[in-house]
Amino acid sequence: MSERGDTAEPLLKGDDADEAIAAAAESRHDEDDRLKPEFVSAVLDAVEEGDAERARDLVSPLHPADIADLLELTPADRRGEVAAALGDLVGAEVLSELNDYVRDDLIGDLAPEQVAEFASELDTDDAVAMIEDMEEADQQAVLDALDPEDRAAIESALSYPEESAGRLMQRDLVAVPEHMTVGQVIDYLRDNGDLTRDFWEIYVVDAKHRPIGYCQLSWILTCPRAIAMADLMKREQTLIPVDMDQEEVALRFQKYALISAAVVDGGGRLVGMITVDDVVHIISEEAGEDILRLSGAGEGDINEPILMTVRARLIWLVVNLGTAMLAASVVGLFEGTIERFAMLAALMGIVSGMGGNAGTQTLAVVVRALATNQLTSSNTARMIGREFRIAATNGATLGTLIGIGSYIIYGRIDLSLVFGAAIVTNNLVAGLAGVLVPITLERNNVDPAVSSAVFVTMMTDSLGFFSFLGLATLFLR
Amino acid sequence: MSERGDTAEPLLKGDDADEAIAAAAESRHDEDDRLKPEFVSAVLDAVEEGDAERARDLVSPLHPADIADLLELTPADRRGEVAAALGDLVGAEVLSELNDYVRDDLIGDLAPEQVAEFASELDTDDAVAMIEDMEEADQQAVLDALDPEDRAAIESALSYPEESAGRLMQRDLVAVPEHMTVGQVIDYLRDNGDLTRDFWEIYVVDAKHRPIGYCQLSWILTCPRAIAMADLMKREQTLIPVDMDQEEVALRFQKYALISAAVVDGGGRLVGMITVDDVVHIISEEAGEDILRLSGAGEGDINEPILMTVRARLIWLVVNLGTAMLAASVVGLFEGTIERFAMLAALMGIVSGMGGNAGTQTLAVVVRALATNQLTSSNTARMIGREFRIAATNGATLGTLIGIGSYIIYGRIDLSLVFGAAIVTNNLVAGLAGVLVPITLERNNVDPAVSSAVFVTMMTDSLGFFSFLGLATLFLR
Repeated sequence: MSERGDTAEPLLKGDDADEAIAAAAESRHDEDDRLKPEFVSAVLDAVEEGDAERARDLVSPLHPADIADLLELTPADRRGEVAAALGDLVGAEVLSELNDYVRDDLIGDLAPEQVAEFASELDTDDAVAMIEDMEEADQQAVLDALDPEDRAAIESALSYPEESAGRLMQRDLVAVPEHMTVGQVIDYLRDNGDLTRDFWEIYVVDAKHRPIGYCQLSWILTCPRAIAMADLMKREQTLIPVDMDQEEVALRFQKYALISAAVVDGGGRLVGMITVDDVVHIISEEAGEDILRLSGAGEGDINEPILMTVRARLIWLVVNLGTAMLAASVVGLFEGTIERFAMLAALMGIVSGMGGNAGTQTLAVVVRALATNQLTSSNTARMIGREFRIAATNGATLGTLIGIGSYIIYGRIDLSLVFGAAIVTNNLVAGLAGVLVPITLERNNVDPAVSSAVFVTMMTDSLGFFSFLGLATLFLR
Repeated sequence: MSERGDTAEPLLKGDDADEAIAAAAESRHDEDDRLKPEFVSAVLDAVEEGDAERARDLVSPLHPADIADLLELTPADRRGEVAAALGDLVGAEVLSELNDYVRDDLIGDLAPEQVAEFASELDTDDAVAMIEDMEEADQQAVLDALDPEDRAAIESALSYPEESAGRLMQRDLVAVPEHMTVGQVIDYLRDNGDLTRDFWEIYVVDAKHRPIGYCQLSWILTCPRAIAMADLMKREQTLIPVDMDQEEVALRFQKYALISAAVVDGGGRLVGMITVDDVVHIISEEAGEDILRLSGAGEGDINEPILMTVRARLIWLVVNLGTAMLAASVVGLFEGTIERFAMLAALMGIVSGMGGNAGTQTLAVVVRALATNQLTSSNTARMIGREFRIAATNGATLGTLIGIGSYIIYGRIDLSLVFGAAIVTNNLVAGLAGVLVPITLERNNVDPAVSSAVFVTMMTDSLGFFSFLGLATLFLR
């Protein structure tokens, strides 16, 4: 028990935390809380040698989230074998923590009855996540194998659009009428505690089951029994419409620092509850996916089948091939000038490259600001002005620097002036395109993270070449 | 009261929700939960006309997070005036929701006593966030103005490193010895309910105040009074070391789906508690900042003073100027070839551009996988193999496409073969650099999101030009 206070290891087993297990525990995670490669190898070796018992001994102290990590870190072609050796250690909770592709792969081999058994152990939202991507026939077989109550709950969730609040919510919640007292609520909970164990707030509803307030459990526990719920509850409440998109749900949880929220149908009736632990991974995903979209990397899921990844990235590369050809055709207009001054071919890439970098900087900022609702129509004009000033300042600085530098190297004042002027021009193009393109796309309901980069690169490349080679054609003698 | 069930509007006022307020409420937010520009203008106009009362009437139904949004959407030079007109509507909670720069700007004008009064109304973590960025003298003045208890709590938090668990945690928490029963805990909470109102779990500690288990409030509420805490509590518990970096804290909350967690010092003693609402914005920030770092946009905070933004972006552009000059010098090596075949100048940008795009795709995926702890030493080799296969497939496809396309346009088989081969080569360079560079940086404790893009672009540009122009020099006649 002496190791309990060990701060280097997050998951401390109480009952059996003797020195040996503590030492083993220490060798499981690295300082960043990831499973160590030695630990993963040890489990894989045990499975390979047919020693399932040793594999299970190693794995059994792990949290379900860590067992899921272990399966993800296992090579795809050995996952089935490892999962089989671990037996019931790979339970419903582990499946609900698994990456979608890895889970679909694993449960693809199971009988519908087994999947149904896992689903019945989970909250509705986790059960839905597990079966929503199955083929329709397989999904139907699982639903048929469920008991009627679970089946009704899951079918009802599946009736809402994908990625909506209706899919995220759980149906098990505590709702009480406002005339109840704190004491009556506690007695009610003691009598009905088997309904649900994980809740953080209870809802107060009117006769039509519409939420009229909520109450944190801590308020109930710190109040005398005689207090009426009507006096204790907070009436100002963030309600989630059942058809709201999960991204909006996540932003709302974040903005109002919610722990849980009531979900209501079109008639304002309480139909479910969403808790923050179901939203946290959406917040992280939504915030992280912009970088993947902006770079055209598709989903960017490292467990995605490789052909899907190839296809997603190739589409983006072919689209960008189009913009590169456009830029090349701009250069082609000036072949005569390039034949006369071959150094232009070397320098023109600096003009387009600097513009590309500046445009990407602006794009990244604007796409994030749009995604986090910080950039709205109220401050769009200010944002454009801000980016224009930044582009002008950086363009002037770089243009001067490059003008002077190229004069030192080539000793031609005409070339330096053309070069500097092209850099300033392309920085302004980059800054304005970087802010105007994503805002325009967003206004037209096109995801700016997906489509902006193509347009901005097209402009900084083509106009960078055009301004530099055009000015050179006019002024270089 | 009939509007209570309105699902379009998240914040429903209960007591005074008559038709008029409901209508006004509807005009405040757009469908994405952002304040409408008309609403913002209405408030600003009222302030400008000196009608502070109208401004307060408009703003008073808002949630503190929305009042903070309103101030952020107000032009910087009018924020002081608007805050003054709103008076006590801009309270401690609003300040704690504000963007750092906007808050620092606003509280810069306040007397230390006023700041201290705001700080004393907040949880320790929010108070610390408010004053941690102040100049040392100003901070000291605020601390001097606090009452001794608040001051001690804040000073203790400030003694931990910035962005550590010690700064995030709150000191108000509920800890009980394991021999207590559920009934005794409830009685204790009723007697001491003024200590803290926002908690979701209570901790069970041993005689040395080391946490030995935790208990969700819902478990207490659903159990008979006679049950002992020792039997109810869960001993497997995720503890947070007080000096852990906030990014790790956020990942741990996410991985184990925590609502709150005990913070322990080096001796394993319970010193504080972190709740998920304090972590949610970190999860979002950490996930979102990779896109900003990868593009060299600095913090990417749209409220940052413009000179700081210019400086951050300019540094990045100058670094990239270096790589662009290197690429230009590669082109310079082949000026003779370009003079003979001017179309190469137009086409070489396609080779470098396609490589740049493919490299950015891989980088984005790898940087995200590293940040989310999905890519560890256990699956690095597999990841490299995966990216190599993707690069080979996409390179072969694009190389063939471009080879055939250029044959149709130029009718030169030698040029098409050189072009296609260069595209394949540069795609492989891009894929391998895109995965090896960030992994190598991470292993050497350099943030891959900040530094990877420079190296990868340098390689795809320089080697793209080198392979294309080099092959052309060898084989074009």
